[in-house]
Amino acid sequence: MVLLGSKTGSVSVVMKVSQQQGRLRIGVVGGGQLARMLGESASALGLRLSVLAQRGDDAAVEVAAEFAIGSPQDGRDLTLFAGGVDVMTFDHELVDLDAVSSLSTDGHHIYPSAAALRFAVHKVYQRSAMVAANIPVPRHCILAPYSDDDFDAFADLLGHVPVVKADHGGYDGRGVLVSSSLDEARDFARALSASTTVLLEEAVELESEVAVIVVTDRHGNQVTYPVVDTRQESGMCVEVNFPSALSPARSAEALAVARRVAEIVGAVGVLAVELFVTPSGILLNEVAARPHNSGHWTIEGSVTSQFENHLRAVSGLPLGSTDALAARASMVNLVGSDSPTDLAGALAIPGLHLHDYGKSWAVGRKLGHVCVIGDDESVRVRAWKGAEFLGTGAARSL
Amino acid sequence: MVLLGSKTGSVSVVMKVSQQQGRLRIGVVGGGQLARMLGESASALGLRLSVLAQRGDDAAVEVAAEFAIGSPQDGRDLTLFAGGVDVMTFDHELVDLDAVSSLSTDGHHIYPSAAALRFAVHKVYQRSAMVAANIPVPRHCILAPYSDDDFDAFADLLGHVPVVKADHGGYDGRGVLVSSSLDEARDFARALSASTTVLLEEAVELESEVAVIVVTDRHGNQVTYPVVDTRQESGMCVEVNFPSALSPARSAEALAVARRVAEIVGAVGVLAVELFVTPSGILLNEVAARPHNSGHWTIEGSVTSQFENHLRAVSGLPLGSTDALAARASMVNLVGSDSPTDLAGALAIPGLHLHDYGKSWAVGRKLGHVCVIGDDESVRVRAWKGAEFLGTGAARSL
Repeated sequence: MVLLGSKTGSVSVVMKVSQQQGRLRIGVVGGGQLARMLGESASALGLRLSVLAQRGDDAAVEVAAEFAIGSPQDGRDLTLFAGGVDVMTFDHELVDLDAVSSLSTDGHHIYPSAAALRFAVHKVYQRSAMVAANIPVPRHCILAPYSDDDFDAFADLLGHVPVVKADHGGYDGRGVLVSSSLDEARDFARALSASTTVLLEEAVELESEVAVIVVTDRHGNQVTYPVVDTRQESGMCVEVNFPSALSPARSAEALAVARRVAEIVGAVGVLAVELFVTPSGILLNEVAARPHNSGHWTIEGSVTSQFENHLRAVSGLPLGSTDALAARASMVNLVGSDSPTDLAGALAIPGLHLHDYGKSWAVGRKLGHVCVIGDDESVRVRAWKGAEFLGTGAARSL
Repeated sequence: MVLLGSKTGSVSVVMKVSQQQGRLRIGVVGGGQLARMLGESASALGLRLSVLAQRGDDAAVEVAAEFAIGSPQDGRDLTLFAGGVDVMTFDHELVDLDAVSSLSTDGHHIYPSAAALRFAVHKVYQRSAMVAANIPVPRHCILAPYSDDDFDAFADLLGHVPVVKADHGGYDGRGVLVSSSLDEARDFARALSASTTVLLEEAVELESEVAVIVVTDRHGNQVTYPVVDTRQESGMCVEVNFPSALSPARSAEALAVARRVAEIVGAVGVLAVELFVTPSGILLNEVAARPHNSGHWTIEGSVTSQFENHLRAVSGLPLGSTDALAARASMVNLVGSDSPTDLAGALAIPGLHLHDYGKSWAVGRKLGHVCVIGDDESVRVRAWKGAEFLGTGAARSL
């Protein structure tokens, strides 16, 4: 056994095993559940997963072949990490984009690129670029610099209280305020403006929310997973259902928008495209250039999961089939709550698949998800029953 | 980050991450591909996998949450390892059975038990116990002590050259000789007798070979996967096909024999029952009290894989559905050869699933497997095409 411990800068690298010959080393920036699930696929593909985690108990550390502790927002840490892997990819996009860009210029294989990540990181940039490319987006206004007068003028224009979004730094509902109080929204926007550009948007008339996972390989070949319905509460994904209840026409429209968005973003790997369905058509909500909660159902529900396809894409391998294995699939997130949990009760539910992210418990934290696939509507009932046995806060909202 | 390194006896334990609260720790004795694939399921179930490996580059080490280096045949190593885990189970059965038995007596949770493992380890014991329980087995003769005269007498009785088997220590064709030369068989038997009891068996008139995976939980509840056809070359499994081509009646007979064998063995977890199909009926070949090559197709082909069900069983959780997800599945082993490999070519085959065990290459070594599921006979063609792209020796034998 070879055990290496080195500490350079703020990155400490522990190599678990002796060097493997000729095995592609995939470095994932971020050690959350997405990296953990990438690890499950990497193992089957024979890829060595290396993780740049922030803490030793991050979800992916225990399944990674190697890990390093460091900051994804520190260029030196990213540089050290990139130097030890063959391909670098991401569990999240809250990274030092300039450093990522420089590393690519220096010849490191990094997918998606900094240019692609920018669409996910900077909402203002995303909105502006999408408008320029004729992608339908909600009506919005960029307050740079911020002023209360501009805020009020835009609210007047809309005729309702705008949704307030931070340009960057928000996820799972953080950095976003949807309020019916003009004063609350204005106060939130003003406070945000101290640290980031403020984006105001119309509160769209939502029929539903859907998502499309597009995967692009290194040669630009694109595959898409079917459109799914997503349900959010307080900005956090609660459940995902396949197939979407959209009409065939709306579904085709959603796929077409997602494909065009993916071409504009140009991300190698998974691009998750979240869309608003409104009476007047499909509008782009957000993009994420990484495996995404709306695609977790593909682990059981698809011939090739989003995680395997992401790894195939960034490794320069051909993409796998995105065909569904059953007529229906339901995924429900497990969110920490004070309710008791009954693991045996949950696993006794026919066809229930558990994905426990191995995280320490905290109220409101995404701790895992359950998924059921099948041919009838009971898949959703079973998934929710599983979530209920597992005592999640989200489960109680069905 | 907490990094612990301790060395006691010949077991050195490296803990990768800081202690996780309340998470069940599953210790697998042996670090091969079965432990590696158990790891992929353990991760999803939120179980912490700890591996007792013989070398730091064993297949499972890179995906395990923790590992120790030690000998499964050294009672002190097993004792140290058992002390650090909540449940102990096995990647192979070449272990110190007395030590396993003592550890169970001392209150450690060990599944399967030493008594169950004994059926897999000692062929003579297995044959004797199965005869006593009226399980159909090939005609055989136990040479203890060995003598050339007894060998010749049994060969005369059969009217053909007997198959020679070592009581213990053989797997993947080692410790077994099927020869048409009486002299070669006698020489092999005499040489074997220096180190183990020799078992002679009739060369059964084989119509085919099939296998049944039975899983038994801690309460004795049993589930079975469907019967599959297996094909061996030189004693090593080459391919597995679902469904079996057996008639419904023979299939029912195979399932019934497998269920009775599982009751006799009494193994908590997976029991793989390998059966000979002969003109006069089903005969028991071998048992393995662990996940088995004949069940690898269940990763993609079944609602719950043999690996997840083994983990559920040994952890005291309810068993999952063994229903098939498609009408057909084919699994082909990847065996090291001198042929070139084309990973991209293989992954371009529709629906091909690769399982690379992350092992170093060697001619004749099982390095991985491929699996394809679907609704028509092309699944087998695609699986073999994948094996061919991956340059395996076995692939050339189709």
